[in-house]
Formats: sequence, C-alpha cells, structure tokens
Amino acid sequence: MARQGRSKSNGAQRRDRSEEVVKAAIKVFNEKGYASASIQDVADAVGVLKGSLYHYIESKEELLSRIFEASDRESFALMEESRKLDVSAVERLHWFARAWSLWYLENIERAAIYVNEWKHLTGARLKAVVKTRHEYEERVAEMIEAVKESGEASATLDVRYACYFILTAVNGLPTWYRRRGPDPAEQIAEVYADMIVAMVCHT
Amino acid sequence: MARQGRSKSNGAQRRDRSEEVVKAAIKVFNEKGYASASIQDVADAVGVLKGSLYHYIESKEELLSRIFEASDRESFALMEESRKLDVSAVERLHWFARAWSLWYLENIERAAIYVNEWKHLTGARLKAVVKTRHEYEERVAEMIEAVKESGEASATLDVRYACYFILTAVNGLPTWYRRRGPDPAEQIAEVYADMIVAMVCHT
Repeated sequence: MARQGRSKSNGAQRRDRSEEVVKAAIKVFNEKGYASASIQDVADAVGVLKGSLYHYIESKEELLSRIFEASDRESFALMEESRKLDVSAVERLHWFARAWSLWYLENIERAAIYVNEWKHLTGARLKAVVKTRHEYEERVAEMIEAVKESGEASATLDVRYACYFILTAVNGLPTWYRRRGPDPAEQIAEVYADMIVAMVCHT
Repeated sequence: MARQGRSKSNGAQRRDRSEEVVKAAIKVFNEKGYASASIQDVADAVGVLKGSLYHYIESKEELLSRIFEASDRESFALMEESRKLDVSAVERLHWFARAWSLWYLENIERAAIYVNEWKHLTGARLKAVVKTRHEYEERVAEMIEAVKESGEASATLDVRYACYFILTAVNGLPTWYRRRGPDPAEQIAEVYADMIVAMVCHT
C-alpha cells in the first residue's frame, strides 16, 4: 500500500510505525534469538532512538506478544476459511494442510519465533498463548476426526497422535527451510499436504 | 549394575561418578534450560561441592557435549541394528522408526536437550554435532529411498521432504510427551512407526 504522505492521519502514521517496529523485532529476534536481543537492537533496526520505541511498545515481551497475536490471528483465519469450503473432509484437510504449511514457509522468520520463543512469555501472555495453541490443536484434531468419520481413514486411526505428528512436522519447517532453497514454497506446501493426507488416510 | 564397594577400582569409581554427573546435568538442563543452568546447580544435584565437579568435567559446555555424544552413539547403534536385519526395505523402515521413537520416549529429557539446546555448543563441538546430524539425516533418507526402490512407495515420492517430515515429527516428541500419559511408550512408538510407513508408502 502506497504511503499517503502528509494527507495521512496521525493515527494511520502511528499504526504504520507500530507495524514497522514489529517487523524489525521479527528480524532481530530471529537473528539473535529473543533472549539475547535487546530493545536497543530493535531501535537500531528501525533507525530510531530507543526512547522513541516506547511510544509504540511497553517492553520487549510486549513485542514478542504482538508477534504471537498476529500469527494466531492469521492461522485461525486459515482455519476458518477451511471450514467454510464446500468440500469433503479429506479435501478440507488437504486444503488446510497446504495453506497452513504455506503460511509457515512464507512467514518463516515469524514461524521460527512462534515455535521457539513462546517460553519467554510470562503470566497472562503465556497463558493466552498456551490456551490458543490448545484450541488450535483441538481444531486440527476435529479435522482429522472428520476424515475418520467420513470413512476415508481407518477406524483405528489414533487421532491424538496423528494430530501431534502433523503439528510437530509443520512446526519443524523453520528448522530446515531456507528461502533460497531449490523449490518454491507452493510446491513444498503441496508435498506436505500430500504427506499429511497420506498419513491420515493410510495408517 | 550393583556397586562393588571397596573392591571397585579407582578408574571404575571415577567412571561411575562421571556418569552420575552427566545424569544430574540432564536433569538440571532439562528443568532450567541450558542457558539458565549453572555448574553450581549440577553440583547441587549431585550433592558435591562445585570444585569437585571439575575433576570430571572442564565446563558446562563439555557437559552438554557429553550428553550429545551419548545420544548420538545410541541412535547410531539403532541405525546399525536396523541395517543388519534380514527384512524388506519397508520392514526395516518400520523397525527403525519404532526403535528410534521409543529411544526418544524412553530418554525424553535427554531427547529434549538434544533437540533444543544444540545451538549452545560452539566451535569444533558445534561442527561435530551438525555433521553427525547431517549423516543421520542422510541415512534416514537412504532408508526411505530403499523403500522407493523396492516399489513399496510411489516413484514420485520426494525423499528429501519425506525425510524432513519424519525427522521433525520424531524430534517433536519432547514437545508433547509426558511420562505419566495414558499410553505406554511402546504403544506410541508403534503408532509413530505405522504413521511414518503409511506416509512413505502412500504419498
């Protein structure tokens, strides 16, 4: 979206800058690790004085928390989209697995933070993230259960372990994926969706 | 193994104590995280003065490194055992996947350290661990390739991505497995092996 220069409201400018700060934090946390990164590093990445950053955020942990909120919002939106599709249970699982893997691949720095740094949240923020993850896990489990009920998976499939297996494999994408690898993200996401569906339908 | 009391040689006593130190380190690193844990914590867990610990180890990093060496030795032994079996490629993959998952489950604290703390190694130790992991990855890939060559998997299976998928799912066991869960480790390992083989043979 093109900047609107002087005609832009203060509120909009503030939101833009706030997003810029979160983007810089993703870069810094990913490169240095959350524990080693400082607010000063984020300020340097944005190109402002450390003091100015406190107009937009209260603490390093708030920054981490904002990264998580955005990631949760986006991955729940994918989940919602998959629910609205007028397709079979197995097609829904494939669509979701592809879209979800692709989200990871296209946001790999953020995904790495999401997977690795959640332990650094504390108190209510930690509770919220853990709760959200359990909800997500439940929804993935329901999607697998639906495939089982449709008769496309074995009646003896253990939905809970299949769910863990899939979640950890997708959460593992940041451990090996590099943007400059040989295959486009879309192709890898398609392969992952195929593998997930094969596992669910043939175990 | 029963202790042999006074008849035990100094060398054997030293080895016992050294193993005790590594065991305590596994416990401490797992509970506090490697970065937050101190040599003092390990000494407290063993029940000796910090100074005595330096008879057995040089540094906290050496302790971490020893944990990795033992884990690598044991997982390569499983790999070797699987190669010696007189079975089909797909049966070999199943045997290995089961034994490897079971190793993770039975050594879950050590496995968690193995998966999460390798970044804290430095220099030659880090290089050695990364090299070992690549070798392991190659061997898992060869095992999948053999299934493909045997005709039990599709000729279009992407061995590299299947390998990543499996490695990350097994590496993910420490994120969710708890020893007091409802199912015995053997059962979970069997389910994991079934899921891995289903994925490889039906994608």
